[in-house]
Amino acid sequence: MGRRACKISYEGTNYAGYQVQPQKRTIQAALEQALTEVHKGMHIPVVASGRTDAGVHAYGQVIHFDTPLALPDEKWPYALNPKLPADIQVEEVKTVPDTFHARYDTVAKEYRYMVMCGARPNIFRRHQAVHIRERLDVPAMQTAARHLLGTHDFSSFCAANTNISHKVRTITHACVQPQGDELVFIARGDGFLYNMVRIIVGTLLEVGVGKRHADDLKQIIVAEDREQAGKTAPAHGLYLWQVDYEESLFTFDRREGC
Amino acid sequence: MGRRACKISYEGTNYAGYQVQPQKRTIQAALEQALTEVHKGMHIPVVASGRTDAGVHAYGQVIHFDTPLALPDEKWPYALNPKLPADIQVEEVKTVPDTFHARYDTVAKEYRYMVMCGARPNIFRRHQAVHIRERLDVPAMQTAARHLLGTHDFSSFCAANTNISHKVRTITHACVQPQGDELVFIARGDGFLYNMVRIIVGTLLEVGVGKRHADDLKQIIVAEDREQAGKTAPAHGLYLWQVDYEESLFTFDRREGC
Repeated sequence: MGRRACKISYEGTNYAGYQVQPQKRTIQAALEQALTEVHKGMHIPVVASGRTDAGVHAYGQVIHFDTPLALPDEKWPYALNPKLPADIQVEEVKTVPDTFHARYDTVAKEYRYMVMCGARPNIFRRHQAVHIRERLDVPAMQTAARHLLGTHDFSSFCAANTNISHKVRTITHACVQPQGDELVFIARGDGFLYNMVRIIVGTLLEVGVGKRHADDLKQIIVAEDREQAGKTAPAHGLYLWQVDYEESLFTFDRREGC
Repeated sequence: MGRRACKISYEGTNYAGYQVQPQKRTIQAALEQALTEVHKGMHIPVVASGRTDAGVHAYGQVIHFDTPLALPDEKWPYALNPKLPADIQVEEVKTVPDTFHARYDTVAKEYRYMVMCGARPNIFRRHQAVHIRERLDVPAMQTAARHLLGTHDFSSFCAANTNISHKVRTITHACVQPQGDELVFIARGDGFLYNMVRIIVGTLLEVGVGKRHADDLKQIIVAEDREQAGKTAPAHGLYLWQVDYEESLFTFDRREGC
């Protein structure tokens, strides 16, 4: 048996999220089914860098699995993709040491959140970016985003029903950028709490429409209280964009950003 | 009764095309149903600038209809859009003279065709651009596209089963441009024959992969024979981008191009 790491992209629209759930379409179930077919019925479990919620997308999710097959790395996408639905794709496969772990070995993650502004949405992006009708104050949102940088207890930006105790994370990049007709929020850090990016974006949008001041972010962080932050932004604007490990595993081609 | 012209966008993926067909989901049926609801059950027929086939999209389809309602132009999108599926949208409405006709009064149309290149498609664009794995010779495609300019009999680029006799059209713009990770083919002219843009794109792609020479386009046009041109490219890369009338009806915001 040898271990393989895979970079995966998926559109989350038609899935109940990454993780297997009985009676539901999930990304993990689709991946394991494709692997089972390639392995002639042998069940191949996969381990991901982390879960994504229903409707959330990924450009660069990373999974690992063990296989008895001696297929060269570059052949794996051609073996798996025809067995996957059109909204899930294996982008790249890399042979890794048996000690590699897609979840425990992550050193950084990048999420992006896409917002389209204007009177009406671009219907072609309706599942892939969130539409905000109000005019947004982008410089204010940029100022607010900078307050997230550094090492903080992010309890204010964590879904209240989470029962993890250590909520300190380090954010190395946080910015809001125009991208064509849209705005993209980019966040990189050593880890993210449950719903953290969506609550941050919900709060930044409240800054953008003038409901809060950019510098309110400072007090919100210090409060360590979910009630102080804004609403959780919708799932369908969010992308797990990239997962980093000690060694650079994949040929990343989408690294423009802040 | 007063006449209104509407600029409509739609993603054609989930429709059997623009025109009403029994037992099928069509753009026209969805528009007429939304109008009927707004008119409390009164059937309001719509007339479009032209049909689009199953899977073909529109950014700027134009329709007209007659209404007894005195709604101001800017209110119409808010009245109709909540009654339309999320993949059809009224972008703009303009009161027009009763003599205006969305089909007969067109003076020009613009179509665009989106192609994504590379080893694998961008799954987020899978219904909105056609994926070509081979490397494309873009300068050769650009040269080929220039041969289309001017007034020609386009019989070679018309579906063979069409029974119209006059196949002379004037093409004022024809170009191939990189656009991010994609290539876009832009064609403007006084009119287009059935499948004309898709057959042109199929032929340009054969030039792009080296199966034909750019200058072959000259002979293909002169031949006036559908057999001489390339395959009809798939529907889902094609967009009816803009329809022009004598007077500028709408605030067009997507006019970058060749």
